[in-house]
Amino acid sequence: MPDPLTIGLLGGTGPQGRGLALRLALAGHPVLLGSRDPGRAAAVTAELLAGRDLPVRGVGNPEAADRGEVVFLVFPYDGQAAVLPGLAAALAGKVVVDVVNPLGVDQAGPYLLEVPEGSAAEQAQALLPGARVVAAFHHAAPRLLADPDRQVETDVLVAADDEAAKALVVGLADQIPGCRGIDAGPLRQARHLEGFTAVIVAVNRRYKIHAGVRVARLGDDRRRRLGPAAARKERP
Amino acid sequence: MPDPLTIGLLGGTGPQGRGLALRLALAGHPVLLGSRDPGRAAAVTAELLAGRDLPVRGVGNPEAADRGEVVFLVFPYDGQAAVLPGLAAALAGKVVVDVVNPLGVDQAGPYLLEVPEGSAAEQAQALLPGARVVAAFHHAAPRLLADPDRQVETDVLVAADDEAAKALVVGLADQIPGCRGIDAGPLRQARHLEGFTAVIVAVNRRYKIHAGVRVARLGDDRRRRLGPAAARKERP
Repeated sequence: MPDPLTIGLLGGTGPQGRGLALRLALAGHPVLLGSRDPGRAAAVTAELLAGRDLPVRGVGNPEAADRGEVVFLVFPYDGQAAVLPGLAAALAGKVVVDVVNPLGVDQAGPYLLEVPEGSAAEQAQALLPGARVVAAFHHAAPRLLADPDRQVETDVLVAADDEAAKALVVGLADQIPGCRGIDAGPLRQARHLEGFTAVIVAVNRRYKIHAGVRVARLGDDRRRRLGPAAARKERP
Repeated sequence: MPDPLTIGLLGGTGPQGRGLALRLALAGHPVLLGSRDPGRAAAVTAELLAGRDLPVRGVGNPEAADRGEVVFLVFPYDGQAAVLPGLAAALAGKVVVDVVNPLGVDQAGPYLLEVPEGSAAEQAQALLPGARVVAAFHHAAPRLLADPDRQVETDVLVAADDEAAKALVVGLADQIPGCRGIDAGPLRQARHLEGFTAVIVAVNRRYKIHAGVRVARLGDDRRRRLGPAAARKERP
């Protein structure tokens, strides 16, 4: 069991937030599932746990930001630019994992929204200049994350400029059964991870599945040996 | 063995062109490997075949465009806008497979170039208004394609607005051992396929591999049953 880290989830009542809360708690980390409305956070948490004895607690977003050692952004894209500036002080110096997919949907299917900063993750970094922003977990199917009886089956491509923060998030991904954390390069690659979600969504619609993505020809020994290992033991 | 289709490759002397020429010829299709310089096309073809008895012939680009029933664009991105307008008449009505990845590289690694039309494939469609442009094969490692003793191991994500053309290219991908053709949605998704190549290149550099991409949780029965099947029998 790895050292437990307190995880804060901002906007955690949606499908991604619920799924990550469950999986990270199952991996042994205390989770603060945050929402604008703490009452709603508590209700969603009770429903999610369904009586299971796991360390997840519903709180307001400010408390999740304050007390989380690693903080996940799992709100919808259109909320990000409004919410983050008020949390910049609380998040300074912390590893912040942006899972936001800036997607729209029209008749032809999903499409990527124009983000002036290049990607949701780069926007988060611009709004949180003191944070160590990491883009990851875009392709983990929320429905599967939230169902502990099913396997998630996806590689978690991780983009960041801060190597130690990236290594930490790769390590968290590795703790979820069926997931493997993989270094996808610097933070600017986030635009391609977010964009690829539009491909996954289109594939899901066409084939009626909850697809994941695997990097083929990357064996696990090699992945561990050459991955961003620097900070496995570092506290965030 | 499927019905043979004459395949034209424009700019086919590069690694992608050579690899696709070899694999499509092994699948039973006559291939015209085109280059601006027919002499160079012939020399590259001789080297590629290395005495193997396969139906690949080196020709000039105009002949590959004229005589190909399905035509692949495998030149570097910076050549596309100059080359295509002169071939628009020859390519009208044909299935044109754009494999172009508009990538640059700087100190931080690979990055996607800005394409005014949104993607190289959409640019090709704009320059070839009569063609049936399909984006595909971005993530097949050229080095593996060109080595018949190695397995390519990648899913081939296929984006197109023309369902029959898409089905045809999915079928071609299926004929290469280790590849599976998968519908990735309309042509505008090409930008995400091209962008994801920057992720694959970064992963290759970090882990020193020739990675492919697999869609996880998509079984082959389902893939065939729900894929774009309309035109499996159609001649292009």
